[in-house]
Amino acid sequence: MRVGELSRRSGVSVASIKYYLREGLLPPGERTSPNQAAYDEGHVRRLRMVRALIDVGGLSVAATRDVLAAVDDPDVPLHEALGRAQATTTPPLTSEDDDEARAGADRALADLVRERGWHVAPHNPAWNTAVEVLATYHRLGDDDLARQLGLYAEAMEDVARREVAAVVDRGDRARTVEGVVVGTVLGDTLLAALRRLAQEHCSAQLLGRAEHPKPV
Amino acid sequence: MRVGELSRRSGVSVASIKYYLREGLLPPGERTSPNQAAYDEGHVRRLRMVRALIDVGGLSVAATRDVLAAVDDPDVPLHEALGRAQATTTPPLTSEDDDEARAGADRALADLVRERGWHVAPHNPAWNTAVEVLATYHRLGDDDLARQLGLYAEAMEDVARREVAAVVDRGDRARTVEGVVVGTVLGDTLLAALRRLAQEHCSAQLLGRAEHPKPV
Repeated sequence: MRVGELSRRSGVSVASIKYYLREGLLPPGERTSPNQAAYDEGHVRRLRMVRALIDVGGLSVAATRDVLAAVDDPDVPLHEALGRAQATTTPPLTSEDDDEARAGADRALADLVRERGWHVAPHNPAWNTAVEVLATYHRLGDDDLARQLGLYAEAMEDVARREVAAVVDRGDRARTVEGVVVGTVLGDTLLAALRRLAQEHCSAQLLGRAEHPKPV
Repeated sequence: MRVGELSRRSGVSVASIKYYLREGLLPPGERTSPNQAAYDEGHVRRLRMVRALIDVGGLSVAATRDVLAAVDDPDVPLHEALGRAQATTTPPLTSEDDDEARAGADRALADLVRERGWHVAPHNPAWNTAVEVLATYHRLGDDDLARQLGLYAEAMEDVARREVAAVVDRGDRARTVEGVVVGTVLGDTLLAALRRLAQEHCSAQLLGRAEHPKPV
């Protein structure tokens, strides 16, 4: 199909398609004349994924390019591809403060990982991110929030076990990696939204009735 | 204390402090001369919170100002203040596509909320966000990811119940709202990081050994 039809099929403007082609987010079409190229169903699918990662997942164009490179490289083992896709979707977070709060947070996370028997590489960027949040709680005097760590870890292990099993079930390597990318990036957004809905419900249960007693 | 000491105590540069004062993220100090103001422990604490929300939570300066306004307004009931703080930390997400995918996602979420007995207002912005993610899964053909919705909701309800109870336990209204803000914004980051660590562990369990058999 020509670029105009690709635009209609994917809902992405021709200008955006040309931008994504220049930025390497979309592979070039098959050249049919000096000024025209032909696109196929793979391009439609890829464009939808690009828009999902950028619009719904909130990724930058650069992060989207990194993630798609992990999807497209068939030469790395599946487990490593998942790790790469994961790493590119973790916001880099490093502190200037190498203080006692940070050291304590690092010990707390190491204890948790050992207790749960998690096998994780220390260079997983999510490690630093988790440590930085825990250290920030401590610096703010919010240690009651840091005490939710075990609960959070248990909830995320339940979620992760089922997620990984679901995408592995797809069988096909490309579809599995794609599932990890979409599921990881958009799953963050979905979990955050459900957490807010659940918080509203629990907050209404705990506080709403006490503050707004029904007239009798 | 003078602005120089405030900077040392909080680890925030004088230039940034002046910027936050101009942007209304930090209340003015007590004027002691035409060119000098005195700051107190409240300013140190507020600055640490501003940096936590911006640097660790990834909020914009505008979103940080909105969140702090909810913390500072003592005239709204506690449950409503929590709702406001929540809403400002939810990325606004609305789709141009008002299609069947979106209608189906909206029904799926309504079913879930009814089944779980959640009392949530339809104008909670998290509702639209969750619907948009589910609709995107469907448009991408990733319905196996959408089927994790019930699991996600259960995990988030467990988390939310304990979180709300913990911050309410603080007793003091200002400390409670502060706990909600910090816990909601930074908690997203912490949950996302733990999910990635758990995914690495589960992925290694499911795939790592099969792909890298131990030499015998």
